[in-house]
Amino acid sequence: MVKVSGELTKKVASIERVEESVVRKGLADGTIVIPKNKKHRISRISAIGRGMAVKINANIGLSSDSSNMTLELKKMETAVAAGADAVMDLSTGLNIKKLRKKILAECPVPLGTVPVYELACGKKLNFNKMNEDDFIDVLNGQAEDGVDFFTIHSGITIDAVRYAMKHPRLINIVSRGGALLASWMMKNKRENPYYSRFDDVIKIAKKYDITLSLGDSLRPGTIHDATDRLQVQELLTLGELQSRAFSNGVQVIIEGPGHVPLNQIEMNVKLEKSICHGAPFYVLGPLVTDSAPGYDHIVGAIGGAVAAWHGADFLCYVTPAEHLKLPDAEDVRRGVIASKIAAHAADIARGLKSALERDYLISKARLARNWEKQFKYSLDASLPRAVRAKAHPRSGKDVCTMCAEFCSMKLVEEMQKNFGVS
Amino acid sequence: MVKVSGELTKKVASIERVEESVVRKGLADGTIVIPKNKKHRISRISAIGRGMAVKINANIGLSSDSSNMTLELKKMETAVAAGADAVMDLSTGLNIKKLRKKILAECPVPLGTVPVYELACGKKLNFNKMNEDDFIDVLNGQAEDGVDFFTIHSGITIDAVRYAMKHPRLINIVSRGGALLASWMMKNKRENPYYSRFDDVIKIAKKYDITLSLGDSLRPGTIHDATDRLQVQELLTLGELQSRAFSNGVQVIIEGPGHVPLNQIEMNVKLEKSICHGAPFYVLGPLVTDSAPGYDHIVGAIGGAVAAWHGADFLCYVTPAEHLKLPDAEDVRRGVIASKIAAHAADIARGLKSALERDYLISKARLARNWEKQFKYSLDASLPRAVRAKAHPRSGKDVCTMCAEFCSMKLVEEMQKNFGVS
Repeated sequence: MVKVSGELTKKVASIERVEESVVRKGLADGTIVIPKNKKHRISRISAIGRGMAVKINANIGLSSDSSNMTLELKKMETAVAAGADAVMDLSTGLNIKKLRKKILAECPVPLGTVPVYELACGKKLNFNKMNEDDFIDVLNGQAEDGVDFFTIHSGITIDAVRYAMKHPRLINIVSRGGALLASWMMKNKRENPYYSRFDDVIKIAKKYDITLSLGDSLRPGTIHDATDRLQVQELLTLGELQSRAFSNGVQVIIEGPGHVPLNQIEMNVKLEKSICHGAPFYVLGPLVTDSAPGYDHIVGAIGGAVAAWHGADFLCYVTPAEHLKLPDAEDVRRGVIASKIAAHAADIARGLKSALERDYLISKARLARNWEKQFKYSLDASLPRAVRAKAHPRSGKDVCTMCAEFCSMKLVEEMQKNFGVS
Repeated sequence: MVKVSGELTKKVASIERVEESVVRKGLADGTIVIPKNKKHRISRISAIGRGMAVKINANIGLSSDSSNMTLELKKMETAVAAGADAVMDLSTGLNIKKLRKKILAECPVPLGTVPVYELACGKKLNFNKMNEDDFIDVLNGQAEDGVDFFTIHSGITIDAVRYAMKHPRLINIVSRGGALLASWMMKNKRENPYYSRFDDVIKIAKKYDITLSLGDSLRPGTIHDATDRLQVQELLTLGELQSRAFSNGVQVIIEGPGHVPLNQIEMNVKLEKSICHGAPFYVLGPLVTDSAPGYDHIVGAIGGAVAAWHGADFLCYVTPAEHLKLPDAEDVRRGVIASKIAAHAADIARGLKSALERDYLISKARLARNWEKQFKYSLDASLPRAVRAKAHPRSGKDVCTMCAEFCSMKLVEEMQKNFGVS
């Protein structure tokens, strides 16, 4: 049984405006997780799963091409300020440990990592010579540091990799962690250590209350590969692993695609819920087209909104830098906001009271041309406030420069006055 | 019967990569329109409707707060360069006629207007004193100028306005044209001239081959009002008017909402198709939340993608300036691209060959780290090219700074070489 303190469930119930029993029940049946390492203090706790508001994650992290730790800390702060519910440090390159400790000390939301990256970026950069114990040891170190959730690519087995080599898809393995593990397996002719030693993974997760995010190494990296045999086979494996971890008292979420056309999103979400026993679904986008580099935050918002409306619980943001470069702080800000819009649109479609209330209140403020109140209820207040400050109309204080005196709100207000409508 | 020249249908068939008979059949049953005034030369013709790629429209136009004609012409050029399939000049304020003639002379795509705005912005600005003939006369002038499609707010009857006054919704009438007509009706205690004199509207449209876009004056202006009695009652009226116009040989499209939550979009599209005899559906967004001013291009892309996937044919773009100010050229560019992404994502979901092909080709280029080819197949090439130019990695020419040497494409390429996979 998953054990979570009563203090946490109370806090979550109050944030989500639900009865505490809803949270307890979700934890008990594995449809809700609360990622939090025993050793990590989190001021902004997040519950992810059925009946909870949709949550979003922002990825940050160094690459071997960029080692500016100050920038990464700034990206973390930007993401949190813009409304990210969780942050993942996906650093590759040097200084991974040092950065992680700094982030953990300052990050007010749950922090996730992909531990295999640390292994791949060790001083010797000799990943293919690692043995199974190395794969487990790196988890112990990160767990002790306080990481709240781990993405573990347990679902890509040596059989799956061999199949992919024999029957290659268009973009065979797009997951970085998945590609690393596949490369290790092929080189060593050994099973994926995160699969063969999954019991050790479970033990560590349980000891520190770490939530496992079971990674989808074989997610589609192009619309062309979406929902194919490799992807679905891996999902079946993840479903089995979810059972094993959950029945041992470990909280689990399932990672999902990736590049998926609009007409396959609902089915992908329902398939995950069915195969993985209702475990929370953490989708990466999904991206509904491959053809808009520079605008993938918009592409991801389309897919994320539709996925979350149909039951995805946790959206990994996509920034405008996706497919082009490591994001900077402004990319992070725009990615978080696009993702928040998607999550909020889904919350509305799912009938979440607090989301409907927000739209009602901003609409009332819009009708009254009460700009400060509009900003108050905006998902991001700073941009619209700045735009408005530069675009006050000549024709009157309260309208905007789009319609000016032909403002329909104003025209109708006058009509209603004449008609005695309040 | 709608009559369209064989030259046009051939051209459309070639652009859309379908048999000419598909285009002819769609024109014959009213599920396809080709907006083009007899008097207007258009170099980039567009067919809108069943079986055609989803099209997008960009609104430009002066307001009484901004009279910079050069800027509006620049916005038209920007919209067309970014890929708009049609442009609407929604000018209010002075110089409407002068601007329209300039735009018509230069615009390579179909141009639409909302003629009642010209009436409202006459020199005397005394709209409520106009008589029925004035409403018809303004159509004649614009038809003669060469406008390709008219938005006519025929569906808002005096009964509907009285109902709205007795049973007000949260944002009663958000349509500018609708609010003007409602105000005229209430002041004059007379029926909407575009409803009572609809036969005259039909005559003019027929004479010049103008496509009628029947406006939805009572569309919801907030999620709270979506799919309510007023909206659906007006749709029923539009369905009747569509029949009358179409049976008289006039091409018709139907305007749709507006602010609609994700879970009501499919139903709204199917309802329009059922009530309006399969006439092309021209949706304004739709916006899936009210709470993201400054980012409404993203909000509209989410709604537009879902609407078009379910059968909407024509997306009116929304810019980041929506609800805040008159858009500038950069807002226009961003609005068009967001809308194109939505249209393309829907084309993919609908299985449109050319759309799938584009995603396939850009994915192949991505796999090969062939950047120029990626830009070639991008919906917008200029932004990703500029981003890439500033973010060449130190670690190698072909990868990007996100994953650098841990590029999954590269890792898998090496594995596949070792495994003899080409």
